[in-house]
This record gives sequence, structure tokens and C-alpha cells, in this order.
Amino acid sequence: MGEKKISKAVIQRLPRYYRYLGDLKDCGIDRISSKELSERMKVTASQIRQDLNNFGGFGQQGYGYNVPILYNEIAKILNITTKHTMIVIGAGNLGQAITNYNNFEKQGFVVKAMFDVNPDVVDSASTRVPVYNIDNVKNYIKKYNIEIAVLTIPKTAAVETANMLVDAGIKAIWNFTHTDLNLPEHVTVENVHLSDSLMKLSYNMERSSDVMDDKN
Amino acid sequence: MGEKKISKAVIQRLPRYYRYLGDLKDCGIDRISSKELSERMKVTASQIRQDLNNFGGFGQQGYGYNVPILYNEIAKILNITTKHTMIVIGAGNLGQAITNYNNFEKQGFVVKAMFDVNPDVVDSASTRVPVYNIDNVKNYIKKYNIEIAVLTIPKTAAVETANMLVDAGIKAIWNFTHTDLNLPEHVTVENVHLSDSLMKLSYNMERSSDVMDDKN
Repeated sequence: MGEKKISKAVIQRLPRYYRYLGDLKDCGIDRISSKELSERMKVTASQIRQDLNNFGGFGQQGYGYNVPILYNEIAKILNITTKHTMIVIGAGNLGQAITNYNNFEKQGFVVKAMFDVNPDVVDSASTRVPVYNIDNVKNYIKKYNIEIAVLTIPKTAAVETANMLVDAGIKAIWNFTHTDLNLPEHVTVENVHLSDSLMKLSYNMERSSDVMDDKN
Repeated sequence: MGEKKISKAVIQRLPRYYRYLGDLKDCGIDRISSKELSERMKVTASQIRQDLNNFGGFGQQGYGYNVPILYNEIAKILNITTKHTMIVIGAGNLGQAITNYNNFEKQGFVVKAMFDVNPDVVDSASTRVPVYNIDNVKNYIKKYNIEIAVLTIPKTAAVETANMLVDAGIKAIWNFTHTDLNLPEHVTVENVHLSDSLMKLSYNMERSSDVMDDKN
């Protein structure tokens, strides 16, 4: 891979390429032109070429893209060819949903344990991993070399908990709390603000005709 | 409100303004300068002014923004000053998590019922709304004038189910399935692709220093 700077907009789109290529692969399709891929994905063929050129460009003139090769190359770029260890903080409904969702594990993200201030409220029969008291989380992260923490706790506890995870050496936080986290630069934060998404839906529902198409 | 076209990037940021203003309001802060708001939100003061100018601009020179007024104005723009009726399709962990999450209802999004191909698997004591067979969903949408359907079902059933919801007159779909939906333009689709988000996290975790800051 080159050392070229990649824009956030391209990174934003990469998982979507990966998803479409995975579907093609599952259907036994080995080869696709940028035109065909463009029609399926509803983005322009020139954007596809531009995006994939960022990573050296895997297409060949007159042949198109080799689906399994491109799929694997994108997996490498996305850093999902090796397994990643995760823990879930907050054992409520959302925490349990994430823990029990098979697809993440298929993609290499393995939930090892859940943590909660009150681990006893969770019926351990209903989760596939152990549920521990949050007091043990620092030791656990160090001992099992956990990379990613999923934060599904009330926003009042979010900042304090995130700081504790950073102290323990966590590399990334997948943040479902209703607040932003300001953490040191070496810690990756990826936000899923569900309420923000629902408000965007509500806005668009009322004014879909008002929305100008941006070029990103 | 004006009839000016609003860019997607601005709409994307509006719920975040709303969230920060709500926090300020909860702390009893009535007035804030764009500079102060800029420091809290980690965006430039000029971007804040530009963004809010799209909606007529609620700031006053030398005074700053009136927090409660701006909060209410953004709520109007986001179309959340009236209640919206929702149903959840798919009564698994994620569907239950969304149904039981109090904050959505506080913001005016009221889940009325859940639907599943196998409604009996859900312990009805654990959800606050009834769980019905998916066969009844069309009648229910019409009878109770449901605006929004939350889709938390396997991707193999997503397209067929979405089309059925559109036939029944649904206005918007909040799509958590691992696939994109191509629906008529009058139907709003807002995607929450959790796997895409996790892959973005994984990419950034490995190469955070490689990411160029875009200006959006």
C-alpha cells in the first residue's frame, strides 16, 4: 500500500465496497466492470475508479475488477484480515444485542466479555460470554490484550469510563453513548449516535425534496 | 424557514448542535457565543455561523446565541416538535434494545408495536409494547397511521419486507439490516450499517496518522 493520504470520505465508502463485493462473491461472480458495480451501488463509475485508485487501483483496462482479489485487498486495507478482541461495557439490551450478533465475529471482531456496574442483573444464560463487574475491566484489558471496547452505558458515566479504558491501554472505543468523547489522539473513537441518525431521518422525512445532493 | 437548499453535510451536523444545546440547557446556560460553542464542539466558529445561517441565523452580534431559542428552532427544523409513530420489525436483541430505549420516546419517537415472523419467541414481559406476527403489519400501519418502521431483520428478508412496508404507506425506514434498500423517492431511508462503522473503526485504529482531515 502507498503512503498516500486517504480522505475520510473515501474511508467512509470502503466498507460499502466491501459489502457489495462480498455479496457478489457469495453469488459466485468473479469479475465486474466499474460500470456494472456503479449501477449496483448507485455511485458513478468514475467515483469507483477514483476511490479504488487511492489504494493502487485493482482494475485492469478492458477486464474490470477481479471480485475475490479486490474483496481481499479491501479487507487488508480495512485491517480485518486478523482477528480483533472486543469487550462490551454495559450489559443492557444494546450491549447484549452487540454481543450476540454473529456477523461481527464472522468479520473477525470477537467479543470476549461484558462488563457492567451490576453484572448480576444479566441472566448469564442469555449471553454467550461472561459478564463481569466493571471494577475488573482494567485488569482484563491488560491480561487479555483487548483492543476495542464497545461503550453502551448512560451518557453520565461515559467520560469517566472512557478515561479508565484509555488508562488500561485500550486502542479503540466504539461509542454508542449519547455524547462525544475527547480522548488522546492515539485512541480511535468511532461514534454511533443513534438519536442523531433518527433526527436526520425525521428531517428528511419532512423535506426530502429540499435536500441538495452533495458530491461526497 | 426559507426554501433554500440545505446540504447533506449541514443536516448531518444539525443533530449534534441539538445535542450540545440540550446539554447546555440542562446545565442552565441560556446564552453562548459561537466561539464558546466552537470550543466545546471542536468545530470552527465560522462553520457554526455558516451552518446556522442556513436557517436564518439565530445569533445576534455581540450577544451570541440564545440557547433555549436556538434549541427549539433546531427542534422545529429537525421535525421533532411533534410526536412520530414507529414500529419495530424484527423482535431480536437489537429490536428489543431500540424498543426499550427511553431516549427515543423523550425525543418524540414512540414505538407502538413490534413485529416478527415468530412473535412467540419473545417474552412479552420483557418489552413494553405488544409483539405481533409480521402478517398483520400492513393493516397495523394503515390503522394506526404509522410513519416510521425500524428494520432489524436478516438481510435476506430486508428487500421484500421493505417493499411491503412501502405498499402499506410507510413514510420512512430506519434500516439496520446489512444491505442497502432502493425504494421510491417519497420514502425516506436512513441507514445504520453497524458493520460498516466497525470496519471504519478498524481502519482508523491501524492508521490513524494516515487520515487526512476533510473539511466537512
